[in-house]
Amino acid sequence: MEQIFGYIDQNADRFIKELSELVNQPTISAQQVGIEETAELLKARMTRVGIKTRIIPIEGGNPVVYGEIEGEGSKTLMFYDHYDVQPPEPIEEWESDPFNAKIRNGKIYARGVSDNKGNIVARIKAVEAFLKVRRKLPLNVKFVIEGEEEIGSPNLARFVEQNKELLKADACIWEGGPKDWLDCPTVYLGLKGLCYVELGVKGAKKDQHSSMATIIPNPAWRLVHALDTLKDDRENILIKGFYEGVEEPTREEEKLLGKIHLPEEKIKTELEIKDFLLELKGLDLVKRHLYQPTCTICGLGAGYQGKGAKTVLPREAKAKVGFRLVPNQNPFDIFKKLKKHLKNKGYSDIEVKLLGAEEPSKTPVGSEIANVVRDTAKEIYGKDPVVYPINPGSGPMHLFQKLGLSIASAGVGWTGSNGHAPNENIRIGDFIEGIKHVALILQKFGP
Amino acid sequence: MEQIFGYIDQNADRFIKELSELVNQPTISAQQVGIEETAELLKARMTRVGIKTRIIPIEGGNPVVYGEIEGEGSKTLMFYDHYDVQPPEPIEEWESDPFNAKIRNGKIYARGVSDNKGNIVARIKAVEAFLKVRRKLPLNVKFVIEGEEEIGSPNLARFVEQNKELLKADACIWEGGPKDWLDCPTVYLGLKGLCYVELGVKGAKKDQHSSMATIIPNPAWRLVHALDTLKDDRENILIKGFYEGVEEPTREEEKLLGKIHLPEEKIKTELEIKDFLLELKGLDLVKRHLYQPTCTICGLGAGYQGKGAKTVLPREAKAKVGFRLVPNQNPFDIFKKLKKHLKNKGYSDIEVKLLGAEEPSKTPVGSEIANVVRDTAKEIYGKDPVVYPINPGSGPMHLFQKLGLSIASAGVGWTGSNGHAPNENIRIGDFIEGIKHVALILQKFGP
Repeated sequence: MEQIFGYIDQNADRFIKELSELVNQPTISAQQVGIEETAELLKARMTRVGIKTRIIPIEGGNPVVYGEIEGEGSKTLMFYDHYDVQPPEPIEEWESDPFNAKIRNGKIYARGVSDNKGNIVARIKAVEAFLKVRRKLPLNVKFVIEGEEEIGSPNLARFVEQNKELLKADACIWEGGPKDWLDCPTVYLGLKGLCYVELGVKGAKKDQHSSMATIIPNPAWRLVHALDTLKDDRENILIKGFYEGVEEPTREEEKLLGKIHLPEEKIKTELEIKDFLLELKGLDLVKRHLYQPTCTICGLGAGYQGKGAKTVLPREAKAKVGFRLVPNQNPFDIFKKLKKHLKNKGYSDIEVKLLGAEEPSKTPVGSEIANVVRDTAKEIYGKDPVVYPINPGSGPMHLFQKLGLSIASAGVGWTGSNGHAPNENIRIGDFIEGIKHVALILQKFGP
Repeated sequence: MEQIFGYIDQNADRFIKELSELVNQPTISAQQVGIEETAELLKARMTRVGIKTRIIPIEGGNPVVYGEIEGEGSKTLMFYDHYDVQPPEPIEEWESDPFNAKIRNGKIYARGVSDNKGNIVARIKAVEAFLKVRRKLPLNVKFVIEGEEEIGSPNLARFVEQNKELLKADACIWEGGPKDWLDCPTVYLGLKGLCYVELGVKGAKKDQHSSMATIIPNPAWRLVHALDTLKDDRENILIKGFYEGVEEPTREEEKLLGKIHLPEEKIKTELEIKDFLLELKGLDLVKRHLYQPTCTICGLGAGYQGKGAKTVLPREAKAKVGFRLVPNQNPFDIFKKLKKHLKNKGYSDIEVKLLGAEEPSKTPVGSEIANVVRDTAKEIYGKDPVVYPINPGSGPMHLFQKLGLSIASAGVGWTGSNGHAPNENIRIGDFIEGIKHVALILQKFGP
């Protein structure tokens, strides 16, 4: 592998430049910005490396960039990634333009650089290095790069259903992942699900002078009262049947939990919080983080939010609420239960829109791909990797798991990557080592 | 008066032009936009008419434009107005630029045209008409035009305290007022008070990926829970001692309430609401509107409010809450009670900022100025005016009432004026008649 690693080191500057070009192209699925441009750019890049690539349209959705390349062995490894990114807002909190990559202190800053474009480039460049040095990959590789992950992959199920043959593979490397708080590489084998909704309440046709609040209904109050029925101040989610099927970790998983680093004081200092929720500590904190579902207000808006005082009675109020779901919970079932809850509490006038639905997913501990990712990570990074039986984030992993693929993650992020937040970044060292890690996975899973 | 009315009619187009110039100059006190420019513009306008005008600075606040002109009689009438306007947001809902007056269907559209610049111009032009036709006013007139009414007049008390001599007068015409739902002129003799606060909650230093919501506190949830303790869903305000001193209308006032037009079906249709709050009707509705205090969410903001889904855990959440207060309530007392309430409920981490405080005020039914405004309105508009013992809006009336002035309102608005909302407007007919009404008040209150 020395020659391949050497090629990666020699071309590091060019790889960074190519990554910069990719992140400078905005691809905001929530706002339908730059989808086609990015798909075309990726296709060109992958084709140039030698990956047979095509853009597969999805009716009513953003296309999938699909690539494949044959190798020497008969095994097939799939890379799942997504080319869309989160909206950059709040833009005023970025230290540099989110769509103009800047290098500062050994880090590349740009929206999507960690989630997920840095990983896309790392994987393409690992393939490039292999082909340049050895002409042939040790196994077949497939790229599935979708364009709607950040809005909950609403059309990917249909794509998977219609392309089962195309998607046959032995295992899958998931989109990415960070080094942990102690700078150890991490591997996760599952993902939480997601049910993301928007609640909307309407009042009078127009904003009113707030002196009318004596007699005209206020949608902001109605929203606050309705939200308050969803969760109490001890974090109990109050929707009937919400916790049905939620399980404790298995004994095998529990063993892994003890090795997960969650350095409490460091995190509290970093995030400037006084305590974790419910003042949890130690294994209880880890267990809650990985094995408990959530009900999160991701956005809240009504009336005047500018400087100073404006005495207005708002005409509407909205909330975005995201539920992270654990195995045995189903987003469509939770959506139904939420609507029923609101109706039972007298809030049937509140409009509930489902903006994203994702099932949870888990690959059993000890699969071949999990072992390969773990062992190669140790070799590349010189540190024991930490294995998460499930990651508290979400994604459409379940669609591929249902095809029979074993799945494990590998990625170039770190705990300060600011995914979904201003000043998203990756460390250049992680990016280059990440390319080597992918190359070594190809080699070790290959034969 | 025929000659004076004739002068007003002949100069109507110019008056509209001058009003347009004044509203085209933004004056947003909440954002400190255009304050000096507007004060200078007013001074120039008033001086040109013959009013001795100066700009009186207020330390730490926006200046008062003060004008005076001697008349034949010994009585003095004061006009209270304000040159600042509400912020124009949400701008996208305006059919034309809020700061570029446009005439459509006999109405002038612009921010501040109704509240309160249309009234300022009407009063100046009534004085102009008198002087042009008769050379002298029948009584002394004083103009007090402040620049912070829309943010709760935080510095006017100090100004009044320091200028008691200057502000001596027999009576005061308050800033303005609309025709009612049946197009009858209205006169109000009092105002509610206001306590306007901003609640702020902080979470982690930065926005987090919403997968962290298992263990990191969410300020949006904390805000929702805290707000929910302020008012129940039957509109009862739950702050201890909030209703102390709140009284029923006097028998004299109650007689006036029966004459107030609140055409329920028309209002519901106009505003597209199904019912009034608590499904109130008739006299109960009027009584609640005038005699009950409020607790209103005027603004609510946290996290992502753009299109689609963003799975973010917000770093802060804010609410703007306005309390309209009735006689015997005091904004500083209510502010103290609110802070105590939040502390007692366990929310002492929530920052509470007082953004505006205004005491309630009432002039007794049957004062000379009230009778003059009512009788002249009947003469000008040919309809019985409706007298409101108290108006559900707010303003610094109490400061002048404490100086011993009797106060009554007169204005150029109508029920569709959209004060504090997009597409603010007045009807040109109302504007011209309003100028005549002011001229007749000068004449009748004069001798």
